[in-house]
Amino acid sequence: MRLSSISLSLLFCSLLSAAPADLIVSAGRVVTMDAQRTVIINGAVAMAKGRILAVGPKAEIDQKYQAAKRIDRPDAILAPGLINTHTHAPMSLLRGIADDLTLQKWLEKFIFPAEAKNVNEQFVRVGTRLAVLEMMLGGTTTYVDMYYFEGAIAEETKKAGMRAVLGQTIIGFPAPDYKTPELALAGTEKFIQRFQNDPLIMPTAAPHAIYTNSPETLKAARALADKYKTLFVIHVSETQKENSDCGRDHNNMTPTAYLESLGALSGRTLFAHAVWTRANDILTIKRHNVGIAHCPSSNMKLGSGTANVMGLLRTGIPVGLGTDGPAGSNNDFDMFEEMDLASKLAKVSAQDPTVLPATQAFAMATIGGAQALGLEKEIGSLEAGKKADLITVSTSAPNGWPMHDVYSMLVYSLKASDVQDVVIEGKATVENRKALTLNPLEIRREVKVLRDKVDASLK
Amino acid sequence: MRLSSISLSLLFCSLLSAAPADLIVSAGRVVTMDAQRTVIINGAVAMAKGRILAVGPKAEIDQKYQAAKRIDRPDAILAPGLINTHTHAPMSLLRGIADDLTLQKWLEKFIFPAEAKNVNEQFVRVGTRLAVLEMMLGGTTTYVDMYYFEGAIAEETKKAGMRAVLGQTIIGFPAPDYKTPELALAGTEKFIQRFQNDPLIMPTAAPHAIYTNSPETLKAARALADKYKTLFVIHVSETQKENSDCGRDHNNMTPTAYLESLGALSGRTLFAHAVWTRANDILTIKRHNVGIAHCPSSNMKLGSGTANVMGLLRTGIPVGLGTDGPAGSNNDFDMFEEMDLASKLAKVSAQDPTVLPATQAFAMATIGGAQALGLEKEIGSLEAGKKADLITVSTSAPNGWPMHDVYSMLVYSLKASDVQDVVIEGKATVENRKALTLNPLEIRREVKVLRDKVDASLK
Ligand SMILES: [Zn+2]
Ligand SMILES: [Zn+2]
Repeated sequence: MRLSSISLSLLFCSLLSAAPADLIVSAGRVVTMDAQRTVIINGAVAMAKGRILAVGPKAEIDQKYQAAKRIDRPDAILAPGLINTHTHAPMSLLRGIADDLTLQKWLEKFIFPAEAKNVNEQFVRVGTRLAVLEMMLGGTTTYVDMYYFEGAIAEETKKAGMRAVLGQTIIGFPAPDYKTPELALAGTEKFIQRFQNDPLIMPTAAPHAIYTNSPETLKAARALADKYKTLFVIHVSETQKENSDCGRDHNNMTPTAYLESLGALSGRTLFAHAVWTRANDILTIKRHNVGIAHCPSSNMKLGSGTANVMGLLRTGIPVGLGTDGPAGSNNDFDMFEEMDLASKLAKVSAQDPTVLPATQAFAMATIGGAQALGLEKEIGSLEAGKKADLITVSTSAPNGWPMHDVYSMLVYSLKASDVQDVVIEGKATVENRKALTLNPLEIRREVKVLRDKVDASLK
Repeated sequence: MRLSSISLSLLFCSLLSAAPADLIVSAGRVVTMDAQRTVIINGAVAMAKGRILAVGPKAEIDQKYQAAKRIDRPDAILAPGLINTHTHAPMSLLRGIADDLTLQKWLEKFIFPAEAKNVNEQFVRVGTRLAVLEMMLGGTTTYVDMYYFEGAIAEETKKAGMRAVLGQTIIGFPAPDYKTPELALAGTEKFIQRFQNDPLIMPTAAPHAIYTNSPETLKAARALADKYKTLFVIHVSETQKENSDCGRDHNNMTPTAYLESLGALSGRTLFAHAVWTRANDILTIKRHNVGIAHCPSSNMKLGSGTANVMGLLRTGIPVGLGTDGPAGSNNDFDMFEEMDLASKLAKVSAQDPTVLPATQAFAMATIGGAQALGLEKEIGSLEAGKKADLITVSTSAPNGWPMHDVYSMLVYSLKASDVQDVVIEGKATVENRKALTLNPLEIRREVKVLRDKVDASLK
């Protein structure tokens, strides 16, 4: 009797003093990725209005906060959501149409004709739904895109409750959405204006590459990005040919030097790939605080080369990871594979197993990716005040046993298929491996229809 | 009335003429990996007494055979089971204890002390159960092992209904099971005698490497393998150091040349790794029809180097894929990742996206692995008369949409987690992702106990 009245009064006290939270997620281990790389055993995160209220031991969080909803995973790892810093989401519909080909054959016989005949707003909407579904189920909470009809991609991404940095493509030949770079620039400005204050979407300007755009277009795209204080996203030094062509056409300059000469690195910039960067390029990249989207799967699969990731990281350049598009370059949106590959590729190219350890690979997929986007104050780690983007990764499958080191597990043993829950902007979008904001069966039906259209168009 | 009597008589006819089968598995696509690389749309495999009776269109198989049990997966790919040509199964219990370290620190501070203090028959049994569970759930139906207490490994593998080529380790220092190579040789002979006629287990002699065994021991191990007409399995040219030490100690010979000089390549041989093989080694390997276990994850993660896989394949040498052990070298038993990596690593090292296409990578994981083991008449493809080892891979997750090319899907997009059913020796060991021959919860409990022991032993 005495005991239960004490219990009751404790409960009463705690309810009185407990602050409201929209959601509490707890797990056996919380990998925060804060500056101290704090890992909390039996920890929890409380969140409200899309932001993290507190991160700490579960007992403490449960005492301080009263949540409308909870997800408790004693068997899982709770971590920041993964950030895919480079992809072309709607190309999910072209997955597997053209693999193991030379770049020229791939583009000219498959990708260009398939895109010319198939890519329209409807294609982009279905492709984005498929991509976002796969990305969310695999633990990605933010992605960076470069494609066409980016406004439609933004709408589909928002509907699914996912966060994205979306780059409207600007390219010097007739594209599925805009027939000239001038029209693309005007369209990009409208797109940026429309989404510039969106809590989930960061709209950006994405000139495809230096070799597909005139210097004037590159400058205009930079001006646009600066005007709206957003990113300038571009493919840079993906292949050796890009570098040699650039040298031939632009006074022996590298693509990085050429962009600097145009003043195109004046504001926040993200380079995708950066495989063929020389020592001088790395200094230029550092000087302008350019972020890098490293894409190990794509660089390997297309035979592009091995990026000097350790050189970039040691210079203090923010490097994130990207899957690149799934049509020939990868062919999926699996950030667990990119972490694993980034580490293994760096080790084999250095012939040194100590480079790019698991902690660093996991950082690249989270806080490093956020830094590469200039969003490190908003996403990339579990800290009070940041956006509530987080995942739980189950350790209940045999590849999760035994648990010795949590970073080793996340990078080398656990898979995208082990992701159990996904929370973006404080809302669960995946719970216990079920997508809550998308309808997989309906998407699959739509994908089948477009698959047959794509196949027919290639005949 | 007329219609149903016709149906009845058809049914009667078909029942009369239908031959009995233990199991029929059907799927939307059957990838046979026969010499013509036949792919059957809506196909099926009938099997009895552990062997395949027939492979063909589902309608035909259903007419010809009457099965005691059926598994129908219109949404899946039916393929030969995967063959993992190199691992150390019980090291599953040491997963993640020591990553991102130099080889010396890894061995001396972690692996050797952990093995010395923990590895006994019980450890090996639990570790094998965990490894076999993970392997089967990921679509592996045959694995090649090199470890200690191989008799216990054989018993556990048999109990789980899995096929394996098990190499008892022979090593020139005191091992957990045998304190001298002489004892190990005698133990190996007993082990081979015990399992030599087993339908699931092929017992073999496995001298660890040239640098851990005397020439006399290597010759004796070879003699043993020849006496029982089995494989001689050995790590060869994994690191550059192994090659330079061999040159220093043995008249400038490479490890391959040294083994040939000892007469150790006289019979069927499997080399694990073969990273540092020169042109002359490749000719020697070809001349003796040595099989290769290529381990891309391990070679990358340990920074060992990049094997000349295209050189080996173009010379007509049988090359399979191996995960290597999960304690530092990998850290899992995921053959889907090895296929994907083998292709990507070959492409990036050649800077050519056309090398090692998906068909070839899938062949390495199936019929190529069988050839490397000299077992191509028994396993590795779906053909009448062969052992009934097969898997279904579901395409119902978003990473399986859309389906354009079945080999691209298997190698670049589908994952171990997409494996739905596993049949070994004609018996389902995994059905709809549930292990039928092992108890995951019990294994997990046992693993947790040993995990704590291992952790304590490293302090
Ligand atoms: Zn790209
Ligand atoms: Zn090994």
